[in-house]
Amino acid sequence: MAEKSEGKKKLSMIVFSGTIDKLMPVGILASGAAAAGYEVNLFFTFWGLRNITKEGIRNQPAPIDKNYESMGPAMMAKMQEMKYPMWYQLIQQAKEVGEVKVYACSTTMEFFGIKREDLAEFVDDVVGVATFLDRAEGGIVLFV
Amino acid sequence: MAEKSEGKKKLSMIVFSGTIDKLMPVGILASGAAAAGYEVNLFFTFWGLRNITKEGIRNQPAPIDKNYESMGPAMMAKMQEMKYPMWYQLIQQAKEVGEVKVYACSTTMEFFGIKREDLAEFVDDVVGVATFLDRAEGGIVLFV
Amino acid sequence: MAEKSEGKKKLSMIVFSGTIDKLMPVGILASGAAAAGYEVNLFFTFWGLRNITKEGIRNQPAPIDKNYESMGPAMMAKMQEMKYPMWYQLIQQAKEVGEVKVYACSTTMEFFGIKREDLAEFVDDVVGVATFLDRAEGGIVLFV
Repeated sequence: MAEKSEGKKKLSMIVFSGTIDKLMPVGILASGAAAAGYEVNLFFTFWGLRNITKEGIRNQPAPIDKNYESMGPAMMAKMQEMKYPMWYQLIQQAKEVGEVKVYACSTTMEFFGIKREDLAEFVDDVVGVATFLDRAEGGIVLFV
Repeated sequence: MAEKSEGKKKLSMIVFSGTIDKLMPVGILASGAAAAGYEVNLFFTFWGLRNITKEGIRNQPAPIDKNYESMGPAMMAKMQEMKYPMWYQLIQQAKEVGEVKVYACSTTMEFFGIKREDLAEFVDDVVGVATFLDRAEGGIVLFV
Repeated sequence: MAEKSEGKKKLSMIVFSGTIDKLMPVGILASGAAAAGYEVNLFFTFWGLRNITKEGIRNQPAPIDKNYESMGPAMMAKMQEMKYPMWYQLIQQAKEVGEVKVYACSTTMEFFGIKREDLAEFVDDVVGVATFLDRAEGGIVLFV
C-alpha cells in the first residue's frame, strides 16, 4: 500500500537458528516477501549455517526445538499432507520469482571449519557482518 | 525525541515463540510502546499462535523455555508478588490505551487446524505474511 | 556504501537470551557494526540481563542452548584455538572504537531483584522499554 518512492522494499533475515520450526518461517517469509516484490537477503550464521551446507540439506528436516517437541510431529505430518514445500525449496522457488540472495557468514565458517565448496548450490556468497548490515540497511531486518 | 514527521512511530512483532518467558516481553513491549504513542502490530505464528486461541489463554502460563527452567520459578513468583499482569492482559490493556492490532497467521492456522472461532476475543484479524509485512513496513520489526 | 545523509547508521539489539551461542553473535554484531561506523545500542533484558551482572561475567561462558548441545563443545574449542574474544570482551573493545551503549532493563531488574551496583562496569544506564525504543528508532533493531 505505502509504496516507498525511494526504492524497493527489502526484507533481510539473520538466520541464526538451526531447528526446523525456525527454518520453516524463514522459507515462508522469504517466499511471501519475494512474491510481494521485496528484495530478500538471508544471512545464515551459527547453527543456521550448518543447514545450508550440502550435507545439511541432505539431513533435512533438521530437529525440532526441544521446547515444542510434543507438538512437532503433528505439525510436520500436516505439512506433508498439505505437500507444503521444505524451507530450502521455498527459498529456491523464491529465487526464481524474485530478488533473493543467500549469504553464508564468513566467521561461522571458520568456527565450524566449513569451506566454500561445502555450501549448497543456492548460496550466493560468503560475507561478513559489515557487508550484510550494509545490504540490509533501510529495510526490515529480523534475527531468527 | 526524534519525532518522525512522516507519521506515527510503529512497532511490529512476529510472535513465533510459545514459551512464557518470550510472551512476557511481547506483552511488556506492546504495552510500553502503546503507552509511548506507537502503533503496535502483533502477528502470532507457529508456536506463538497456539497461545492466542481460547484454549491457549485458559492454559496460561505457558511453559518456560527449557534453557532457563532453573531460573523460571523465581521469576514467575516475583511477578506474582508484584501482581504483574500476564502478557495477554498487557496486550488487552495496550489495546485500550493505543492503536494495537493482533493478527493470527493464516498459514499456521492451516498447519494446526485452528479455526477463526477458536481464536481469543482480542484477535483482530487472520492475515498472511505479505499483509503483515505491509502493515509493519517503515517501523521497528522484531522476530520473537 | 549507501551512506544515509540524515545521520549515522544505527544497530540496536534487545538481548533477551542468556545462552552463550546467542551472546556471541551479539558481541560479533556489536563489534562489526561499531567498526563499520554504526551507533550500537544494546538493551539487556530477561535472561540476557543476568549475564551483564558482575556475577554473570564471572560465570562465563554461559551454558549453550540445549538444542545445540551436541555441536557446542566443538565450536567453543575452535573459538578458544582461534583465541576468539568472549562476547563481553567484544563489547568492551567495541566501546573503545565506536559509539556503543549498554543498557539494563529496569523491569527485569525488579523481577530478579538485581541492583544497579550488581551490574558490570561496561553497563551505561538502566532504562525502560520506551526509552530504549526511542534510542533504537530509525535503525536496525534485532530481538536476540
